Amino acid sequence: MTMKQVFAPSTFHPGVLAAASTTSAAAKADAAIASLPSRMESDTFGSLSIPPGCLWGAQTQRSIQNFPIGGIESRMPMEVVYAQCLIKKVCAEYWSDDANGAKLSKVNAQAIGQAADEVMSGQHDDQFPLVIYQTGSGTQTNMNVNEVLSNRAIMLLGGVVGSKVPIHPNDHCNMGQSSNDSYPTAMHIASVLTILNRTIPGLKVLLDALESKTTEFQSIVKIGRTHCQDATPLTLGQEFSGYAQQVRYGIHRIESTLPALYRLALGGTAVGTGMNTTEGYAEAIAQKIADATGLPFTSAPNLFEALAAHDSLIEVSGAFNTLAASLNKIANDIRLLGSGPRCGLGELSLPENEPGSSIMPGKVNPTQCEALTMVCAKVMGNHTVITVGGMQGQFELNVFKPVMVANLLDSARLLGDAASSFATRCVVDITPNLNKIHSLLHGSLMLVTALNPHIGYDKASQIAKSAHKKGQTLKEAAVESGYLTAEEFDRWIVPEDMIGPDKNEK
Amino acid sequence: MTMKQVFAPSTFHPGVLAAASTTSAAAKADAAIASLPSRMESDTFGSLSIPPGCLWGAQTQRSIQNFPIGGIESRMPMEVVYAQCLIKKVCAEYWSDDANGAKLSKVNAQAIGQAADEVMSGQHDDQFPLVIYQTGSGTQTNMNVNEVLSNRAIMLLGGVVGSKVPIHPNDHCNMGQSSNDSYPTAMHIASVLTILNRTIPGLKVLLDALESKTTEFQSIVKIGRTHCQDATPLTLGQEFSGYAQQVRYGIHRIESTLPALYRLALGGTAVGTGMNTTEGYAEAIAQKIADATGLPFTSAPNLFEALAAHDSLIEVSGAFNTLAASLNKIANDIRLLGSGPRCGLGELSLPENEPGSSIMPGKVNPTQCEALTMVCAKVMGNHTVITVGGMQGQFELNVFKPVMVANLLDSARLLGDAASSFATRCVVDITPNLNKIHSLLHGSLMLVTALNPHIGYDKASQIAKSAHKKGQTLKEAAVESGYLTAEEFDRWIVPEDMIGPDKNEK
Amino acid sequence: MTMKQVFAPSTFHPGVLAAASTTSAAAKADAAIASLPSRMESDTFGSLSIPPGCLWGAQTQRSIQNFPIGGIESRMPMEVVYAQCLIKKVCAEYWSDDANGAKLSKVNAQAIGQAADEVMSGQHDDQFPLVIYQTGSGTQTNMNVNEVLSNRAIMLLGGVVGSKVPIHPNDHCNMGQSSNDSYPTAMHIASVLTILNRTIPGLKVLLDALESKTTEFQSIVKIGRTHCQDATPLTLGQEFSGYAQQVRYGIHRIESTLPALYRLALGGTAVGTGMNTTEGYAEAIAQKIADATGLPFTSAPNLFEALAAHDSLIEVSGAFNTLAASLNKIANDIRLLGSGPRCGLGELSLPENEPGSSIMPGKVNPTQCEALTMVCAKVMGNHTVITVGGMQGQFELNVFKPVMVANLLDSARLLGDAASSFATRCVVDITPNLNKIHSLLHGSLMLVTALNPHIGYDKASQIAKSAHKKGQTLKEAAVESGYLTAEEFDRWIVPEDMIGPDKNEK
Amino acid sequence: MTMKQVFAPSTFHPGVLAAASTTSAAAKADAAIASLPSRMESDTFGSLSIPPGCLWGAQTQRSIQNFPIGGIESRMPMEVVYAQCLIKKVCAEYWSDDANGAKLSKVNAQAIGQAADEVMSGQHDDQFPLVIYQTGSGTQTNMNVNEVLSNRAIMLLGGVVGSKVPIHPNDHCNMGQSSNDSYPTAMHIASVLTILNRTIPGLKVLLDALESKTTEFQSIVKIGRTHCQDATPLTLGQEFSGYAQQVRYGIHRIESTLPALYRLALGGTAVGTGMNTTEGYAEAIAQKIADATGLPFTSAPNLFEALAAHDSLIEVSGAFNTLAASLNKIANDIRLLGSGPRCGLGELSLPENEPGSSIMPGKVNPTQCEALTMVCAKVMGNHTVITVGGMQGQFELNVFKPVMVANLLDSARLLGDAASSFATRCVVDITPNLNKIHSLLHGSLMLVTALNPHIGYDKASQIAKSAHKKGQTLKEAAVESGYLTAEEFDRWIVPEDMIGPDKNEK
Repeated sequence: MTMKQVFAPSTFHPGVLAAASTTSAAAKADAAIASLPSRMESDTFGSLSIPPGCLWGAQTQRSIQNFPIGGIESRMPMEVVYAQCLIKKVCAEYWSDDANGAKLSKVNAQAIGQAADEVMSGQHDDQFPLVIYQTGSGTQTNMNVNEVLSNRAIMLLGGVVGSKVPIHPNDHCNMGQSSNDSYPTAMHIASVLTILNRTIPGLKVLLDALESKTTEFQSIVKIGRTHCQDATPLTLGQEFSGYAQQVRYGIHRIESTLPALYRLALGGTAVGTGMNTTEGYAEAIAQKIADATGLPFTSAPNLFEALAAHDSLIEVSGAFNTLAASLNKIANDIRLLGSGPRCGLGELSLPENEPGSSIMPGKVNPTQCEALTMVCAKVMGNHTVITVGGMQGQFELNVFKPVMVANLLDSARLLGDAASSFATRCVVDITPNLNKIHSLLHGSLMLVTALNPHIGYDKASQIAKSAHKKGQTLKEAAVESGYLTAEEFDRWIVPEDMIGPDKNEK
Repeated sequence: MTMKQVFAPSTFHPGVLAAASTTSAAAKADAAIASLPSRMESDTFGSLSIPPGCLWGAQTQRSIQNFPIGGIESRMPMEVVYAQCLIKKVCAEYWSDDANGAKLSKVNAQAIGQAADEVMSGQHDDQFPLVIYQTGSGTQTNMNVNEVLSNRAIMLLGGVVGSKVPIHPNDHCNMGQSSNDSYPTAMHIASVLTILNRTIPGLKVLLDALESKTTEFQSIVKIGRTHCQDATPLTLGQEFSGYAQQVRYGIHRIESTLPALYRLALGGTAVGTGMNTTEGYAEAIAQKIADATGLPFTSAPNLFEALAAHDSLIEVSGAFNTLAASLNKIANDIRLLGSGPRCGLGELSLPENEPGSSIMPGKVNPTQCEALTMVCAKVMGNHTVITVGGMQGQFELNVFKPVMVANLLDSARLLGDAASSFATRCVVDITPNLNKIHSLLHGSLMLVTALNPHIGYDKASQIAKSAHKKGQTLKEAAVESGYLTAEEFDRWIVPEDMIGPDKNEK
Repeated sequence: MTMKQVFAPSTFHPGVLAAASTTSAAAKADAAIASLPSRMESDTFGSLSIPPGCLWGAQTQRSIQNFPIGGIESRMPMEVVYAQCLIKKVCAEYWSDDANGAKLSKVNAQAIGQAADEVMSGQHDDQFPLVIYQTGSGTQTNMNVNEVLSNRAIMLLGGVVGSKVPIHPNDHCNMGQSSNDSYPTAMHIASVLTILNRTIPGLKVLLDALESKTTEFQSIVKIGRTHCQDATPLTLGQEFSGYAQQVRYGIHRIESTLPALYRLALGGTAVGTGMNTTEGYAEAIAQKIADATGLPFTSAPNLFEALAAHDSLIEVSGAFNTLAASLNKIANDIRLLGSGPRCGLGELSLPENEPGSSIMPGKVNPTQCEALTMVCAKVMGNHTVITVGGMQGQFELNVFKPVMVANLLDSARLLGDAASSFATRCVVDITPNLNKIHSLLHGSLMLVTALNPHIGYDKASQIAKSAHKKGQTLKEAAVESGYLTAEEFDRWIVPEDMIGPDKNEK
Repeated sequence: MTMKQVFAPSTFHPGVLAAASTTSAAAKADAAIASLPSRMESDTFGSLSIPPGCLWGAQTQRSIQNFPIGGIESRMPMEVVYAQCLIKKVCAEYWSDDANGAKLSKVNAQAIGQAADEVMSGQHDDQFPLVIYQTGSGTQTNMNVNEVLSNRAIMLLGGVVGSKVPIHPNDHCNMGQSSNDSYPTAMHIASVLTILNRTIPGLKVLLDALESKTTEFQSIVKIGRTHCQDATPLTLGQEFSGYAQQVRYGIHRIESTLPALYRLALGGTAVGTGMNTTEGYAEAIAQKIADATGLPFTSAPNLFEALAAHDSLIEVSGAFNTLAASLNKIANDIRLLGSGPRCGLGELSLPENEPGSSIMPGKVNPTQCEALTMVCAKVMGNHTVITVGGMQGQFELNVFKPVMVANLLDSARLLGDAASSFATRCVVDITPNLNKIHSLLHGSLMLVTALNPHIGYDKASQIAKSAHKKGQTLKEAAVESGYLTAEEFDRWIVPEDMIGPDKNEK
């Protein structure tokens, strides 16, 4: 494994969209790009020197220089870049269509599309060096995409890199778009694809694992705990069924936010009016994106809202936040039930994955629980970021776009990855410590609850308190009380009968 | 108006459920209660002195003494108490039914029901003095309800208050329940009723107001602003349509969380197993609550989850949090568009509701915007409370129940009240300052965008920059540039044509 | 105990400042106020009907009508009202001083002062009905105070209530002030007094209790737990010393924020310039407040910052937030160490304060831990509110003042109350379960760590793993391994020697 | 510029500590490492294949495989790794000292020290591939450091990489440490150094810029705004003085948290007792770290607290959170005051750094404000993470260490970087638009406040309202009212006299 793989920004690729570059073609392209000399590029503010080996242009370079903020943690997510490329590709197709006026030549559109495919295949990740702490509209990343696609398409067509001929970053790659509608469209596409390809699959692995344990543990009767204190019994399977239900609801909660993400801003251009586009354009592009992804993307019914507010991301993040609370509860329970090996609750044995201590021989820790709960804390913090960013949009444009989407994607990745890791490296290999479960259950005083219908709450309470005070077993105290016989005790106190409502036939 | 009215805990009453007490009967009851002398009451921990005029018993009194935390702000919400009473009433009905074994006499069940109706009508609010910072299961409030209903029912039946005969707080009022399932059921009922009766109606008032303005302002073309900087134009109606859309989505977001709240915990008793109930009980009670409220309450599919986690409340709070972000954006925009009267943006005139300053004569402030944005901040904080409480459930019981529901209800009330107040005291009376809107629009340089198709982006950019630098009008700079004539300028720069996509027939 | 006492808004009273009204005088005043008929009062917006029995005037009434938001939970804290009254009193003194131009007659100043004293003594709480969701500058509460003091002073001087003669709410009660500087000054005074009288005393009760337990438990050796797994031993006193240290630091953290609160905004008037005051006024008033309270209040060095931003409150809330995290950890540990009685860790016995379950006889729960951790969640939520409010100030005035101070005071009250309750009703009565502690300690495998220096980490690890696998005691496994003898085991494995660094003389 | 430079994890290096490796030596080392073949390494769980070119060992490799969570955003911060290396170096020195028993040979200690220096110089960043979502104690990163230093030291001594001879990762690199005390010590060192080298220097650049503007703008009288509405005047310098004060306080707030970070956990080993160390060790190591850094690090007075809780990090994050609120306010004000160029408030011109729009020619946006406010949102979210992690420590160890320190360092970096960028690329080049400032000031109605002392509040109010209603200038309305003459108006209404208290000589 190389560093590149360890830190691979993501396994996310809208791969169905991009023809996989053959290895040799990719290698040839890489070599050609690597050999690009330093050159001057210009924008309306003047010209700038671009380092060798770079496909980006003046506006990207200006952003690098103007926003030296944060480190690698602050990089613009590649998922957004890939989604921007998909937009560029379908827009180029649209404008090259005769039915839409053929404002772009077919050969140029194809070159843009091929360049976009290359980026989407992960071939040019190094060409997107910007951080999220740039302009709040994401304009500089939109221009980074435009510039890279422009130069790469020019290369493909045999032109001079940096010449903007025959593919101009603004006039062609950005045709019919503004950053103000293109970038939020990429935010939605990137979020949906990450959720569907990474978050939900990871959660389903966890749900499967919890459901299996629900079945596997269905007959193991154990003590219940409320207020962290001994309570009436339930089965270990029932306990895990609660965890499974939380995850099941969590998946549903996330899925039910997807319709909000399917609504795309594209077609609003600068302020939501769609100025400089044509009627039907917004819907046509949404349809093309739907076709390319196989997902029900549509044009947002109100494009003013779609540019000025990103409530949809807050909504999605709210679902993540709920799930983080759920997972925190589950992981905490499991680590406590698995605490020990000798001095904890010890009802469960968690799998031993790695040494736990450099000073204490033989120590093993619930590290998957720890990684998961750290992820939960992070997801809650990301929710704060997204809320604080989302609440501050002004007039026709929210300018917290990059920080919002980056934090949403971080949560989406982390929840999927951590849920899957927790499932496969912890949950599936959990085993019950039957001896411990049994001895705790039968030592418990709360089984006394079953006496209520026979001798009443008050006498039952006396027995429990007496046993507690004298350190007796419940049976000893019961018999000593004279309220019932040993035989009655054995007949009435049957934990296996206490794990559900009374059968009606009784 | 009296203090009592000003601070009436809420206008929430599940009034359809309770026969309205006649004024004279209520007065008579009040007098009888007020004349109750101090007395001793007991629980399994011993006996305690109850102050005169109080219907509550030993466990309530113990809670008062053991939890002197916070002030009136920390009171258990009456909505929860009312919902608890509804549960007591339907449970009493259930157990008095011959089909269910008639474990409770019909006369006793009716007395409990009548006492519950009285509380639900708001007659005995003073009898519920506990704070939310008590036991985390809400047990003490459940017992407060049991004790008050017990004593009030005893009064109705001519018995001795405090005697627990013939209505025992535990054996009868709490029959077939545990706090662990009864209290979270009350949490859900109270939340649903508050959302339906207070939150959503308030939001709909706001939505109506914003929709009216959308129509009213549909032909007023104004300058757009992105990054707080001048941009291409849109209509004031379009701008308000974005606000309306945010609120519309917000209502939908809240409504889509209701199914989670319709799932009731009742029937789980102590740990979710339903021990000490009978098969079908959970479903029957949910149906009775559904009948009483006319709402689709059902028994939760997994009662372990329903006691151990309150993810549903986090989900609802997430919807509130999203809405708070939306409303913060809207109120902020409106206060900025209404800023002035001479030195701000001044596009809107907000209604003048009260004097704004004791030192600056004639000053009027956007106070409804301020109240609303303070509410938004509070709702976000409540969301933190609910998340932090919800993430920490342990084993079979989450013990942050009271603080979770109290904060959810606070958000529910505040959003409804503030949205309605903002709508009726601000939005409906907003008027556009047409002169200001017109002069800003026509002074703007961003109308230059309309020249792109005619003379290209670069020349257009030169004109805009020249006008900016020299302080010229756009027309002056355009004509001076020689790129177009004054007539062309007038023909091409028509803001009214810039508020949508080009018509396809062009 | 009456409802009034149960819900007494606070025990906070700057009592040293106010001559305690004699009971008979207070009763007479109460009667006179109660008999006030309904009347008309006016402000610059016109006249309004004031209900009978009310001392407030038109602007208060207008606020009641314009802000029907929230319930009793949303009331403006009385602490702020009291602090406003203190300001009114010292300002009246200042302006009646010959050295300051005697702009107010001495008799009028004294009447204002007496009225203020009455309010500060808690006599007129009912006269302050406003909610915090009003204008964001707190102007309406400032006017509520001005109006009540005006009318009460007029009563004291035998005038006509509502006549504004001889004491005008603006001209006299508000002399030399703007809400913009007066209200934030009250925010700081109220916060300081609440922290000093309620928060810190409560925390010191807890610190004392934890320190006592540190000493009491200093010789009880017990198993340590890291990652919730068995680790090397420590004493129970050492464990509690960590808790005490957290609280000690927490008190220090809060105290170190007080200097920020001692800086007062008064003298800035409308925008921070101090227009319409005289040089030296700001400092003189700060000195008077310092004299009245015995606390080192000063005039803020930059009054623009003092009006436009309330970073000081965010700073204080940050200290509260840290403390909430500390207390959450402590309460959680104690509830887990006290879990049982039979099926938990069971190292501690927590005091039994009240019945824990209506369904499970004899159940007792760690309710003080639960109340405290709910308070922690609330304090964290309040911190969000204060941060969100504080970050949104605009230009010369932050208009989230009421919601910021109300949430700060809520946290201040809750932390003090809950810490004190937790200390006196839980910590002081905690007892160790020595048998359980002893058996867990000696059953632990992690004592094996003491073998490292004798037989090496690897062999020690083999022994621990073997014992774990075979369910042996550590000694059994050690002897069976052949790496050491039973005698060596007894000599080397001495938990009492494992609770600190090796003595150097060894 | 290469990708490596763009994404250089930080410019942070405790460079004074490390002898700078000569370029040729570093290159030689790099080549030697790169040529390492794949090999097997082992830990107590067995052996694993290590990829070629890697210095790490089995436990690092196991962590890579067991925690495939997140992407590059989730990497363990290098600052923590560097700080760990400093600890390893001084511990090796300590144990090689004859006075401390010379448990480590001097040659081995020097080899460890040299390897640590190389890492601290940034030479081996690639050898630290772990993510923060691993074990919550940071053990795996501690072992990553131990393994890399072990292998690199072995290389330096001519040994066989992977042989653990003569330098063992646990026995030598980790001598006298546990992850439980070593990792939190690294957390504190890394935080302090980042704050001192990156956060505070960046903030001071901003403070200097704001102070310069305070002076530069001290005579420019402008309209004040409260509630976003026109208010009495102040100078632009006064307005900026408020911003400067916020930043000045913010720096002080951060600095006042440093004492908490100077307290080090080292010497506590596994649970805080210091088992397996010697008396005086903790203090000696703290002193060595103090000497190496020139900073007043000390041994924490209570090591149980230092392992089990990280309240200090919550405290520091609280200071960052306060500062984020301050910076959000400042950036927002500046972007609004600079809004326009034609249709906003337009009092300020912000520097134009890059093109703002691909569709609107000539558009320039306040992008530095946007980057800064996005950073503020992120810092607030990081604060949530740190609080949620910190509140959940259990027993003797908080296991949210990596996520806490990573988020703290992220905030520390971002605040310093963004403040500096905002200062140098925005604040220093802000220029006032004097014409706009002047015309707004003189058009304002709130100058009427100056008439109060001459004609009274009520008549002044009439004039202001009349001017507002009729669209008159204040002078027109004043003269028309008959309350004063034009000459009196000119004498009384002098904005320059309204920017401070009355001089006492008046």
